[in-house]
Amino acid sequence: MTVPDQGEMEKTVVGGLSALLGPGAVVTEPHELARYEQGWRYGRGAALAAVRPSSTEEVSRVLAFAAARGIRVVPQGANTGLVGASTPDATGSMLVLSLERLSRLLEIDPVDRTVVAGGGVLLSQLDAALAEQGLLFPIDLGADPTVGGMVATNAAGTRVLRYGDVRQNLLGVEVVLADGTVLDLMAALRKNNTGLDAKQLFVGTSGVFGVVTRAVLRVVPRPAQRATALVGAASGATVLQLLSHLERGLGDVLTAFEVVSADALGPVFRYQPRLRNPFGAALPPYTVLVELSTTLPSERISLDDLLESTLGALLEGEAGEGITDIFPGKPSDLWDVRHHVSESHRHEGEVLGFDISVPRSSMAVFVDAARALVAAEYPFIRVCDFGHWGDGGVHLNLVWKKDEAVRETPELKAELQPRIYDLAVTSFRGSFSAEHGVGPHNQAFYDRYTPALVQEVCRTLKARLDPQGLLGTTRLG
Amino acid sequence: MTVPDQGEMEKTVVGGLSALLGPGAVVTEPHELARYEQGWRYGRGAALAAVRPSSTEEVSRVLAFAAARGIRVVPQGANTGLVGASTPDATGSMLVLSLERLSRLLEIDPVDRTVVAGGGVLLSQLDAALAEQGLLFPIDLGADPTVGGMVATNAAGTRVLRYGDVRQNLLGVEVVLADGTVLDLMAALRKNNTGLDAKQLFVGTSGVFGVVTRAVLRVVPRPAQRATALVGAASGATVLQLLSHLERGLGDVLTAFEVVSADALGPVFRYQPRLRNPFGAALPPYTVLVELSTTLPSERISLDDLLESTLGALLEGEAGEGITDIFPGKPSDLWDVRHHVSESHRHEGEVLGFDISVPRSSMAVFVDAARALVAAEYPFIRVCDFGHWGDGGVHLNLVWKKDEAVRETPELKAELQPRIYDLAVTSFRGSFSAEHGVGPHNQAFYDRYTPALVQEVCRTLKARLDPQGLLGTTRLG
Repeated sequence: MTVPDQGEMEKTVVGGLSALLGPGAVVTEPHELARYEQGWRYGRGAALAAVRPSSTEEVSRVLAFAAARGIRVVPQGANTGLVGASTPDATGSMLVLSLERLSRLLEIDPVDRTVVAGGGVLLSQLDAALAEQGLLFPIDLGADPTVGGMVATNAAGTRVLRYGDVRQNLLGVEVVLADGTVLDLMAALRKNNTGLDAKQLFVGTSGVFGVVTRAVLRVVPRPAQRATALVGAASGATVLQLLSHLERGLGDVLTAFEVVSADALGPVFRYQPRLRNPFGAALPPYTVLVELSTTLPSERISLDDLLESTLGALLEGEAGEGITDIFPGKPSDLWDVRHHVSESHRHEGEVLGFDISVPRSSMAVFVDAARALVAAEYPFIRVCDFGHWGDGGVHLNLVWKKDEAVRETPELKAELQPRIYDLAVTSFRGSFSAEHGVGPHNQAFYDRYTPALVQEVCRTLKARLDPQGLLGTTRLG
Repeated sequence: MTVPDQGEMEKTVVGGLSALLGPGAVVTEPHELARYEQGWRYGRGAALAAVRPSSTEEVSRVLAFAAARGIRVVPQGANTGLVGASTPDATGSMLVLSLERLSRLLEIDPVDRTVVAGGGVLLSQLDAALAEQGLLFPIDLGADPTVGGMVATNAAGTRVLRYGDVRQNLLGVEVVLADGTVLDLMAALRKNNTGLDAKQLFVGTSGVFGVVTRAVLRVVPRPAQRATALVGAASGATVLQLLSHLERGLGDVLTAFEVVSADALGPVFRYQPRLRNPFGAALPPYTVLVELSTTLPSERISLDDLLESTLGALLEGEAGEGITDIFPGKPSDLWDVRHHVSESHRHEGEVLGFDISVPRSSMAVFVDAARALVAAEYPFIRVCDFGHWGDGGVHLNLVWKKDEAVRETPELKAELQPRIYDLAVTSFRGSFSAEHGVGPHNQAFYDRYTPALVQEVCRTLKARLDPQGLLGTTRLG
């Protein structure tokens, strides 16, 4: 009797999967496989194959097949995650389970204000379909993820202040467990208070407890109008004061409150000359993108007028102290500036990104502390911070030119990460991952900062839901 | 060696607890104990004693003490729950752990828009403190529960349409497990995407996994104005049409959409003569209480005008078909009517209440089906339905005069419950407990309708978090 070598085992697996789903569903050619092995920005590995089922039933068959053979599987949506949780590891022995073909199901109930969507439906696809019905799924972010991926990473973005994250807009899910069992939690109910809300186990847990194949989402009436302005602020404290002031008066129509520091904004105008810089050479320490939106028609109330007069009045009162500039502008233009921030930093040199949150009243102090930490010991690094101050979220990009650094990039990153995370988590009771979730990219910090008891609960859940430990590359316990 | 009898064991336990917390913290006198043994509306049992710790540390000591002796404990807030989950069983061997003394901690951070509150803080107390700062915790319901109780039952009420339930406004919790371990999940973060959101295990699970001793709540800016009207509708279908119409135009300021059927509203005016009945003798089949509210000042936009003109314009168009009456009125007056609905039914005779939800687009059809079911076989029963149609929630009160019933009340209830729940859950994919949670009162239906796998997960969690099974009277798995 001969022991089959790895090549033969691969052939058996690929053959078996092709027999299950048809040959078109299994990807093995290196040039086709590459996009399943490489993340959008982070994460790279080597897969045995990628398999693309086109129904829940097929997902179930693939997982049952893999479980029977002890093959590890990484679920993948649009592969736009930022923590490396949707790509295989380097062993070449994992199967990528792509949900991209679960994209056809998209049922909108306008009276219910809910959508049933397949796990592979793209955010852009969802948005286009909803727009036709005057509805909106209020998650807004730079990438175009799938519904399943958004559930598994609890996607958030720029309008959480007003609408909440995916968790808060999710009514039901269908999940396939590692052994192929289909768990139907697809209740389209806004109120359903019957013990443990089991769907929460699959939100933000990187697919390690099960694969999200369908979801029921709650959607909102699409705004009829939108008004935006850039506001210059002399300090972080001024920004927080502005936030409180605007929330009190405009709380119901304030949809976004995005903040970009001068260091973070400079590169945008340097590398995107087509974008208009209303400030000129001297950027204010902080620029705030304020967005109002409402379903109320402009004949009732004009948000442009409301925003302009509110900001104008602000300048005259005490709350306006430290406000340096006010530039109303077209929403698409101003969001264009905001959405080019992160990308522009990559033109400046090496970037080490952090996705931090702190209690939002501590934001200004936290960013100052991070700046002080860096300035004291790494004078060649610029702290380019920007983010969702309305939600206490900040993307802290540390940027430096390679040739000015005292150490090699990997060494420097390894040194900086624990220091910044420790400042955020330990000194400010913040989070080491505000919205990107958990994956190999930040696994070490998950291990360090997650209470032992929570990790133990996750281990207990994993032992029941995926006893062989086959699903995903993230380890929650 | 003699075996101590129950009386002696009780003395030992009471003595031990008094030594731990001081004698004033332990209640054993029957006339004082009664209010801990008897629920606000449902639930009655007999307790060994009630113990009232005044800090998390004391809660921990009490639970460790009880765990060491295998004593079962039922956590209790304001004891206003409606499923019997906060009262002891009939054995006389359980300890009531009252959180009422954890009421002193109440820290408001107006910039963060968060509150840290002790588990024993009352909703009314929270609201009064927040009002001073122009803030609001947006849970509105008939009772005055504690913060801990609201978390354990995921309280909801009349403004979920706009603001969500407790789960959606909860940032962090502190929980004491059955063995006295304190689990600190008190992050005051709006974005914190670091794996399993462990606090979800303690939301809506009736205290069986741990006792909520503190919470961080997200609060909202308090509205500056409010406008309400009663709208008469000829049918349930008209009500749903009105809901869609109002959401499209007024989505951002629509705060409540409460619906009361004629059968449910009649008793209000019969038993509360001080409440004004604008309709006269002929009540419309459905009355809708529409509430708008906003933080925008009335100089910007008058909600009274907006509501009146929107409803007025409605009458002229197609969407107004079936609208029979429009009566604007003072919010406090109209809410007074709404809040007396349930109570007034008790004057009419026997009441069997159901707290159902269905996908909200099915609400009219569901209620008609329930009416048809009852009319066909129980002609002496009136279906008095009212509730939160904007959230798909309906309280279905079945009301009859005892002497007209063909069977004894308990027998009739036992026959009706499974039929109505089955209609809701099986035929309409609805919930047998929209907002009241799970307890002994509906345990049998939890057992019947909860997926076996979810019950198994709960059993697994219980085995880790409360291995002796000492906490609570609800059984989730």
